[in-house]
Amino acid sequence: MPDQILILGGVAAGMSAASRARRIAPGARITVLEAGPAVAYGACGLPLFIAGQVASLEALRARSEEDFAGRRIEVLTGHAATAIEPSRRRVLATDAAGRERGFAYDRLVIATGAVSRGFAGDECPLLFRANTWAQTARLEAFLHGLAPGHRARAAVIGGGYIGLEVAEALAARGCQVRIIQAGATVLPSFDADMAELVAARVQQAAGVELQRGVRVTNIISAASGIGLDTSAGRLAADFAVEAGGLAPNTALAAAAGIALGPTAAIAVDDRQQTNMAGILAAGDCAESRLRITGAPVWIPLGAVANQQGRIAGQNAAGGPVARYPGVLGSLVLRVFGIEAGRTGLGLAAARRAGFDAAAERIEAAVAAAYMSRERITLKWIYDRASGRGLGAQLAGPPGTVLPRLHAAAAALAARMTLDQIETLDLAYAPAVAPLYDPLAIAAHRARR
Amino acid sequence: MPDQILILGGVAAGMSAASRARRIAPGARITVLEAGPAVAYGACGLPLFIAGQVASLEALRARSEEDFAGRRIEVLTGHAATAIEPSRRRVLATDAAGRERGFAYDRLVIATGAVSRGFAGDECPLLFRANTWAQTARLEAFLHGLAPGHRARAAVIGGGYIGLEVAEALAARGCQVRIIQAGATVLPSFDADMAELVAARVQQAAGVELQRGVRVTNIISAASGIGLDTSAGRLAADFAVEAGGLAPNTALAAAAGIALGPTAAIAVDDRQQTNMAGILAAGDCAESRLRITGAPVWIPLGAVANQQGRIAGQNAAGGPVARYPGVLGSLVLRVFGIEAGRTGLGLAAARRAGFDAAAERIEAAVAAAYMSRERITLKWIYDRASGRGLGAQLAGPPGTVLPRLHAAAAALAARMTLDQIETLDLAYAPAVAPLYDPLAIAAHRARR
Repeated sequence: MPDQILILGGVAAGMSAASRARRIAPGARITVLEAGPAVAYGACGLPLFIAGQVASLEALRARSEEDFAGRRIEVLTGHAATAIEPSRRRVLATDAAGRERGFAYDRLVIATGAVSRGFAGDECPLLFRANTWAQTARLEAFLHGLAPGHRARAAVIGGGYIGLEVAEALAARGCQVRIIQAGATVLPSFDADMAELVAARVQQAAGVELQRGVRVTNIISAASGIGLDTSAGRLAADFAVEAGGLAPNTALAAAAGIALGPTAAIAVDDRQQTNMAGILAAGDCAESRLRITGAPVWIPLGAVANQQGRIAGQNAAGGPVARYPGVLGSLVLRVFGIEAGRTGLGLAAARRAGFDAAAERIEAAVAAAYMSRERITLKWIYDRASGRGLGAQLAGPPGTVLPRLHAAAAALAARMTLDQIETLDLAYAPAVAPLYDPLAIAAHRARR
Repeated sequence: MPDQILILGGVAAGMSAASRARRIAPGARITVLEAGPAVAYGACGLPLFIAGQVASLEALRARSEEDFAGRRIEVLTGHAATAIEPSRRRVLATDAAGRERGFAYDRLVIATGAVSRGFAGDECPLLFRANTWAQTARLEAFLHGLAPGHRARAAVIGGGYIGLEVAEALAARGCQVRIIQAGATVLPSFDADMAELVAARVQQAAGVELQRGVRVTNIISAASGIGLDTSAGRLAADFAVEAGGLAPNTALAAAAGIALGPTAAIAVDDRQQTNMAGILAAGDCAESRLRITGAPVWIPLGAVANQQGRIAGQNAAGGPVARYPGVLGSLVLRVFGIEAGRTGLGLAAARRAGFDAAAERIEAAVAAAYMSRERITLKWIYDRASGRGLGAQLAGPPGTVLPRLHAAAAALAARMTLDQIETLDLAYAPAVAPLYDPLAIAAHRARR
């Protein structure tokens, strides 16, 4: 059992690692260094706080620092790590007062998350992000300071799921929102045909404009507003929020000689172990393996970070070896009155991965026709030769996506084929679920 | 390819068989004999029609008789089969005018459904059922004829899911409802602790009383009302509805020498083939195999009937051999403001089946705590030695059960173990799904 477990980063993966390590190794000293002002908060809820659906940033905390103290997990916020020294098993960090301190470790878990690779937001007072507690607090303070009734012009840079959530939040706060998306449609992790179902809803939303295929090349900040140089010319706004453009935060790890993988995130094996003895990594800074192919991928998602954190914590603490089976990139979002979800590979990605892939896209009922007219669109991606499932993408009214998405994630993990999916015994009740679930219908049609 | 495919029964399994057979064998003659007045209707929606949530019985039809005629499926309603003569490959039936007719077949699909094994309702004008079109029409006519504002006293015999749905429907129609349940709690296909969560909601419902552990031994019908002799003495009501007490409708099959299984339903193999050449059976009259154990079970459910009907239709028509992998008994219901679902084995049933079974019962959030306070109760039943999942039971607010129930059904079909379920990649979004799905939490706790 290690004496000192040190964890860099205290949001999702870091605090999961700390909690699991504490359970495994009751006698170990556990210290978490977090650069920001808060730990263990739900970063995925930050846009919902901006939208006014969460009362305060404090409400996003899964656990308080007192909780961690009570479990003898030392949490040091405002501590930015500046160097990892593997040869001395030590990390250097700067505390809130700017003093440099050294922290020894027997086991180190790197959970430094992701950073924006975009524009230098902090030097630009009217450029914001919504991916950390501190950034979101800054954005909220700005919005709070707007004159009542003033319809501020907001530019949201990026049309991924965070961009859409931020756009919806800003519209709810009375802003006039322009989403600037470099790609041809929104939600790059979805197939374009499925993403278009969401894009259509974005375009119908009051006070929101979607600009596609426009790349922001520079941001010019002034006291009175912000100018964006784009591939479609100069755009003006009162303020801008950069959403997306994230990259794994690997600077410290790389400088210490810890190997990065082909995705530029920290390379780890299925125990979350890096190439250096005693050093593990988890969450948005680390690479994963896609369950479908085993290929390395970088998929920064909260649920993945928490799972990896638990694995890393258990292994760092010397518990029974825990192994992470990899990711499917399962994702669900609810924006502008529509829900969308994805898991596994999209059609194009499946073909790039070498599969002879095909897709069956259906529109189907989610309850008996006499109880509901709601319909869902489901796209099932599969390998033609074997019938094996490769991925699923869905879009439909709120509440309709998760049953199929959860079942699809289980089916993909089990490498189910079309005939196995068609004959799943899925529950039916006229008001709750249709006689033939959309999953079974898609599998049935694909087999024909 | 057979020339003449004859199908006995035209509700769920029968019409699914007819449709599939038509697709497989475009040249075959396909005839459906249905004793009742309508085919291809959603029997599970009958209580919802009584409740006033469905506009008409007609709305329950999945397809009209014209649709079937257009696809050259001959549908003969009001035709009650009276004998199967396997040696002559012929069925005798009485048509609506009381004439006996003979129907030859090359392949016969028996889909005669279930019958009440309870009290002789038809001779009792104030005793009703809600399991067929004709019975439901009779109940509706009676309710329609009640004096406006009159709070009729209704006795619902049976506290299974149909009993609860009928009770809720009658309460919605202004009746004062007493549910008389022989067992100690409601929903016999659930473990008692889970059923109690639903029973508690039934007992809180206005105008509904639940009597447990009371067995009805006799029904005395009079013009002015109905008397029930019970193990708790004589009870009086204005009318009664018998819900449950169903048995497979096998009289014709048994008389023709077709083998029944240990459950008293028609024995079939995984092709829905009976012991007699050319004769198949599907739906509520037929036996199934439980996927978990392979043991024969009789589980009359609409989704199962439709799946089996398709298998039977394909095989009857001489298509590529289709095989039914068996049932999990997946069931979901929404009554009195609560949803409940089950799949696989309950704890007691798992132990009876010889497993060293244990259960992990948890209460867990279905979204981030800052977005919703809703919680679900999930009971995961598993084999202690192997960790293999055996069953799941759930109860929670509307909309919360299906995601976990669908995923559980897929996990059970894939024989997943606790560690595989804990590390499923299930999507998370604060407003839609929790960071740790209840399924993963239950698996995690069970492993500790």
